[in-house]
Amino acid sequence: MNIYADHAATTKMSRRAIEVMLPYMDQIYGNPSSLHSYGQRGAEALQNAREQMAKGLGCSPREITFVSGGSEADNQAVLSAARIGERKGKKHIVSTAFEHHAVLHTLDALKKQGFDITLLDVGEKGLVTPEQVEAALRPDTCLVTVMYANNEIGTILPIAGIGQVCRRAGVIFHTDAVQAAGHLPINVERDNIDLLSLSAHKFHGPKGIGVLYARKGIPLENLIYGGAQERGKRGGTENIPAIMGMAAAFSESQEKMEEKARKVTALRDRLIEGLSRIPHAVLNGDRESRLPGNVNFSFEGIEGESLLLLLDDKGICASSGSACTSGSLDPSHVLLAIGRPHELAHGSLRLTLDEENTEEEVDYMIRTVGEVVEYLRSISPLWRDLQSGKLPFMTKEA
Amino acid sequence: MNIYADHAATTKMSRRAIEVMLPYMDQIYGNPSSLHSYGQRGAEALQNAREQMAKGLGCSPREITFVSGGSEADNQAVLSAARIGERKGKKHIVSTAFEHHAVLHTLDALKKQGFDITLLDVGEKGLVTPEQVEAALRPDTCLVTVMYANNEIGTILPIAGIGQVCRRAGVIFHTDAVQAAGHLPINVERDNIDLLSLSAHKFHGPKGIGVLYARKGIPLENLIYGGAQERGKRGGTENIPAIMGMAAAFSESQEKMEEKARKVTALRDRLIEGLSRIPHAVLNGDRESRLPGNVNFSFEGIEGESLLLLLDDKGICASSGSACTSGSLDPSHVLLAIGRPHELAHGSLRLTLDEENTEEEVDYMIRTVGEVVEYLRSISPLWRDLQSGKLPFMTKEA
Repeated sequence: MNIYADHAATTKMSRRAIEVMLPYMDQIYGNPSSLHSYGQRGAEALQNAREQMAKGLGCSPREITFVSGGSEADNQAVLSAARIGERKGKKHIVSTAFEHHAVLHTLDALKKQGFDITLLDVGEKGLVTPEQVEAALRPDTCLVTVMYANNEIGTILPIAGIGQVCRRAGVIFHTDAVQAAGHLPINVERDNIDLLSLSAHKFHGPKGIGVLYARKGIPLENLIYGGAQERGKRGGTENIPAIMGMAAAFSESQEKMEEKARKVTALRDRLIEGLSRIPHAVLNGDRESRLPGNVNFSFEGIEGESLLLLLDDKGICASSGSACTSGSLDPSHVLLAIGRPHELAHGSLRLTLDEENTEEEVDYMIRTVGEVVEYLRSISPLWRDLQSGKLPFMTKEA
Repeated sequence: MNIYADHAATTKMSRRAIEVMLPYMDQIYGNPSSLHSYGQRGAEALQNAREQMAKGLGCSPREITFVSGGSEADNQAVLSAARIGERKGKKHIVSTAFEHHAVLHTLDALKKQGFDITLLDVGEKGLVTPEQVEAALRPDTCLVTVMYANNEIGTILPIAGIGQVCRRAGVIFHTDAVQAAGHLPINVERDNIDLLSLSAHKFHGPKGIGVLYARKGIPLENLIYGGAQERGKRGGTENIPAIMGMAAAFSESQEKMEEKARKVTALRDRLIEGLSRIPHAVLNGDRESRLPGNVNFSFEGIEGESLLLLLDDKGICASSGSACTSGSLDPSHVLLAIGRPHELAHGSLRLTLDEENTEEEVDYMIRTVGEVVEYLRSISPLWRDLQSGKLPFMTKEA
């Protein structure tokens, strides 16, 4: 069996998205900034894609800026709001402890420039409330940035409520919706969002392309200076093939969102139920407010990397957390943020499902994860110490 | 006839590049940061592409950073060198008046941060000499940034000599090689280059992808913070399909560079010769040190935009200068930099050729441009004033 269960890391491009892209590679390849007809056909495509993305987000096409992906969008959003704040003498930013590093590392850079950052506690469930956000606001707060859904543990945050708090207080609200876009219904009006980031390759679109939505009246700061593209706010020849592929994949995801969510949620619940039967396993992230496809467990007494390699050997592509930090040996900052001790954070497994996964695959994963966990424990000194009572268990028996 | 003569704006993807890209869209689509085999196949591809790019530039694979294109590379290169300088109290940068806006606008931003910028005069030929650069160096110079070849008038700058001057003085040297890469043989050792930018879509690769070469020992500053990708210097999931497409197109361009340059140069010379016969036309940019495919003329008494639209009507895709600034009504800063008066800068035409263009097309362009210029002059009040002697001609008769 060959199972891809790492859809939060990246997805396979949809057939429709690929087919939409292809003609823009070697037929309608003109630079949309060019006046001639080759260029103008590109410019029309660009406008078309902008309208499709705007429709899906409930905003105006002029509020869409095409960028190279979620990380760029996060960086530009946070930086733009910080600069607006700075001009008014407001240098306080509210965020959470389990944001993506594209946000957290940008906040680190701003800290060095004298910004004061409040990172909200996300509790054991991995959630924050609008009330928490409200309590953290100060007269000098210039930005609240809270992700729509977490990339590791899949929790869905109460974005509309947080947005409302920010709107009332007159504070700019950014949400990193990279994991949510294409999977959850997003509407920037209903959700009171001022700035939003999304990335196409998380919903079966191409890599290297994303959107920064910025509400009218919020001036963007350039990350990339250059030509007059994107109203002068993002230099670089527009990547029309990828933009068209993203728009097609986004439209496709909107069309089948409900049906797909129903199917994937059922698979997810079956997988969670099955893995819960493994002794001394604990689900990470809230059970209810959770992305349809996200499953994340910690297993006591084992080491996540070995688990991944053995699962891979048995045809299961999984992850221990975010792909973006896999170069590092540090335990996941997300799992630490929800209070998991280092040992449990190290023994974590993320399986992220999509509509292409099947019940059969889920059952195979339940069985195989159980076997591999059992095997790894049988050779684990840590597990021996837990069994003998030398170390205390941190989780329940099953 | 349908002629694409705007290859400096963007190119059609090569068949080979498209074919190399495709499997990475829906087969080998894993995130290269993932530990599992899907991810590792992506990581291998990434390493492969890095080696191909390094080979073509004469550097080590570790010196290659993948970014979203030429503009991002230019921004990151200039910013990185500026920050290195700043730490040493060196805040003077030498560049030229006719760089791409990705460099010039980044320099503007640095100016606001207290950097002192010297823009070298490029003379009527559109060139600078190593001696000019040497004379501009100061003890507090932290960066020299001079483009490899100009995007509008196609002049090729004496990069190896400029690099040598910088090397001797211990000043970092960046070159925007967006128009040169894939068209001219570049070797960062021979050319004494410390930082170099290139963009795939200028040599039949995909849009949305480029390279920043940074010599070992030159620390890059993040433009985009995020995950551990690209040694932590460029956040965002690696765009493997585009990276593979770029590497394939770059290798292809290296293989056929000489033959192609010979062919395209012959077409270019035929076109220059033909257009030179139009009265009161002047070639912009040095006649000799010139990209194989670049032709750029100014015609007295006409307006460039009308010329483009009428040529487009007759099946010729051309440009008045850079595509990146087409939103603007200002005359080209490049043509102003080589001393063309506003009237001549406004009446300019850039035709950029490639191996797919033919002699037949060139002859059609010579004929058609001649006719259209004649027609536009026949309805131009400015031309009337020139003819009647009310205004003086700025160019020779033919």
